[in-house]
Amino acid sequence: MGSVFDLSLVQRGGRLRRTPFFEATQRYGARGYTVYNHMLFPIQFDDLEAEYWKLVQGVTLWDVGVERQVEISGPQAFEFANLLTPRDLTDCQVGQARYVVITAPDGGIINDPVLLRLAQDRFWLALADSDVLLWAKGLAHVLGMQVELAELDVAPLQIQGPKSKGVMQALLAETVLDLPYYHFTQTELDGIPLILTRTGWSGEVGYEIYLLDSSRGTDLWERVMEAGRPFDLAPTGPSDIRRIEAGILNYGADMTLEDNPYQVGLGWMVELEQQADFIGKAALSRIAVEGVRRKLVGVEIEGERLEFNMTKWPVSAEGKVIGRITSAIYSPGLRKNIGYAMVPTECSSLGTVLSVEVPEVGERRATVVRKPFVDPEKEIPRA
Amino acid sequence: MGSVFDLSLVQRGGRLRRTPFFEATQRYGARGYTVYNHMLFPIQFDDLEAEYWKLVQGVTLWDVGVERQVEISGPQAFEFANLLTPRDLTDCQVGQARYVVITAPDGGIINDPVLLRLAQDRFWLALADSDVLLWAKGLAHVLGMQVELAELDVAPLQIQGPKSKGVMQALLAETVLDLPYYHFTQTELDGIPLILTRTGWSGEVGYEIYLLDSSRGTDLWERVMEAGRPFDLAPTGPSDIRRIEAGILNYGADMTLEDNPYQVGLGWMVELEQQADFIGKAALSRIAVEGVRRKLVGVEIEGERLEFNMTKWPVSAEGKVIGRITSAIYSPGLRKNIGYAMVPTECSSLGTVLSVEVPEVGERRATVVRKPFVDPEKEIPRA
Repeated sequence: MGSVFDLSLVQRGGRLRRTPFFEATQRYGARGYTVYNHMLFPIQFDDLEAEYWKLVQGVTLWDVGVERQVEISGPQAFEFANLLTPRDLTDCQVGQARYVVITAPDGGIINDPVLLRLAQDRFWLALADSDVLLWAKGLAHVLGMQVELAELDVAPLQIQGPKSKGVMQALLAETVLDLPYYHFTQTELDGIPLILTRTGWSGEVGYEIYLLDSSRGTDLWERVMEAGRPFDLAPTGPSDIRRIEAGILNYGADMTLEDNPYQVGLGWMVELEQQADFIGKAALSRIAVEGVRRKLVGVEIEGERLEFNMTKWPVSAEGKVIGRITSAIYSPGLRKNIGYAMVPTECSSLGTVLSVEVPEVGERRATVVRKPFVDPEKEIPRA
Repeated sequence: MGSVFDLSLVQRGGRLRRTPFFEATQRYGARGYTVYNHMLFPIQFDDLEAEYWKLVQGVTLWDVGVERQVEISGPQAFEFANLLTPRDLTDCQVGQARYVVITAPDGGIINDPVLLRLAQDRFWLALADSDVLLWAKGLAHVLGMQVELAELDVAPLQIQGPKSKGVMQALLAETVLDLPYYHFTQTELDGIPLILTRTGWSGEVGYEIYLLDSSRGTDLWERVMEAGRPFDLAPTGPSDIRRIEAGILNYGADMTLEDNPYQVGLGWMVELEQQADFIGKAALSRIAVEGVRRKLVGVEIEGERLEFNMTKWPVSAEGKVIGRITSAIYSPGLRKNIGYAMVPTECSSLGTVLSVEVPEVGERRATVVRKPFVDPEKEIPRA
């Protein structure tokens, strides 16, 4: 583990669960872990900027086994899944995935998983960091719904970056390359059962491989690394630089139970016109009419390179604290400090000038800008 | 932070929340943090054995701000709190606390908080590591109950050890010493609003101070350290050695959603004869009659000192894997390796000989013994 990080201190005794790739990530030099869904999550193998360049110019491998799968199955699985999320799942076919939010009665965001429809009556939620199993169990029990709910022993890897297609081609059959965005397929590799999805948390071309047999974690990792060798595939953490450039939010930082989808730019997921009810529909219908008082905006922060931060730096307008920075980072591609701020709606229009109080640095001028910071349809500027 | 632990790697960017005592724990030399309820939890300032001796011979201070409080208030607060737990809260008076379990419909354990009754219609749950707020919100919404549910900005400290009474006497009014076990009182210290409870996770004499104004974390910490100076009060993590000696379980390791109270020795909390319904009552009534198939037992593990472990070492009987060690540790007081094992009921009687497979060490003989390992009514043997 090197001298800077003694894992034994973070996980004294080992209460925290390990993904099936834990041993591999140790051998491949993971330098830092965080904790996510009660599991150890390797988030750093090299410095942030080095990992960013590997992602945007090459291809990277991430252990995201912490994306726990909650399975919803049984006769009322569709009805229940549709009740959990404001998105209308009617047109979600078997083999398709959807990025969804799970909302509370007041419209607050409980989680933002990727949903897979595995069968007419079987769905998986690949979860961000909150105990959605408890939320779902409480609802299903009281509603007396005919569903089974379980956390599965399934662990995804992400393979992200412009060269990911090459890696997947070397690893699996040629046909996987035809997989459309947000579709998935069941497959296997030397007897290792897998689900392959065209999804990811990078805004780059990318795939996720869900490992269905947790005893084969090291086997799968090594096969992926082997297939990736000609492409210089590098194990890294997820890139916060790249996900912010791409306008992707991090649950727990940029959106929480206190925020509704309209506030954080996910209003497009709230399909109020659908016939079915969903948790939060009444509250979100009201908010849709009334509008929101606060909004998450993109900001550029002037001055020298800032360290990555999600500790809620205060944001001021005309000398008064009016909001918080939810994520801030230096983009070496854009050569700018970029991030998100939660601010009153009246301070959210493009071009608004704000002031950010950066601890130990001082006041920094910030401007509200369009997000995503890079246009996913265009060649990304790497200034 | 010293050279062995670079906190920036664990909490890259700072998505994980900090307790109000975070800065103080840094200044006082916290060497290791884990993550608990999405917050950083300082669990080590010195080595485990040194911290153990400070606890059992003196007095220690723990930042347990991660024990998040979920508040249940409103006209149906009592009814709802009673629905969440198998314990009958009818005789829980205002000013009293209860150690409770929160159970799922199948009797599985969702959490094991300390419940405080602050008013006829106001309860707090000081939680172990799971999102009980989501569980409770789902139930309350569908049942249409008149309750308000919120996670509060309240953070406890624990002051544990035989000299804790002296520290509390120096810190607060003399009268607090009359506080009976599992009672609490509201008080303040130089304008810092507090709740003081006679509770703790050590089996030693101890108190918890709930900080009600999170802006005063450093102030409170320094006042406690000052009052503790004549008693050599030491900041430490909670002692897994001492809690295992005392028969205390760690949620997420020794009990999980997969286990019911009868399996883990908490059957005394399941009050089936009460009139009120509670979540899990039907399942637990059935289990009470049928008995359990698996049980958590105390074990002594022979041989040299073992490192603290909760990674589920395999347990065998007659050459066949039949269970798992949920916690194992060396007790310097008892001069023995002790722990818990989840085993089939037929292997749970006192004196049963088992075999434990310790990675990188080999097979170790283990014997089922009574727990707690030390009798709380007697002077603890310190061999």
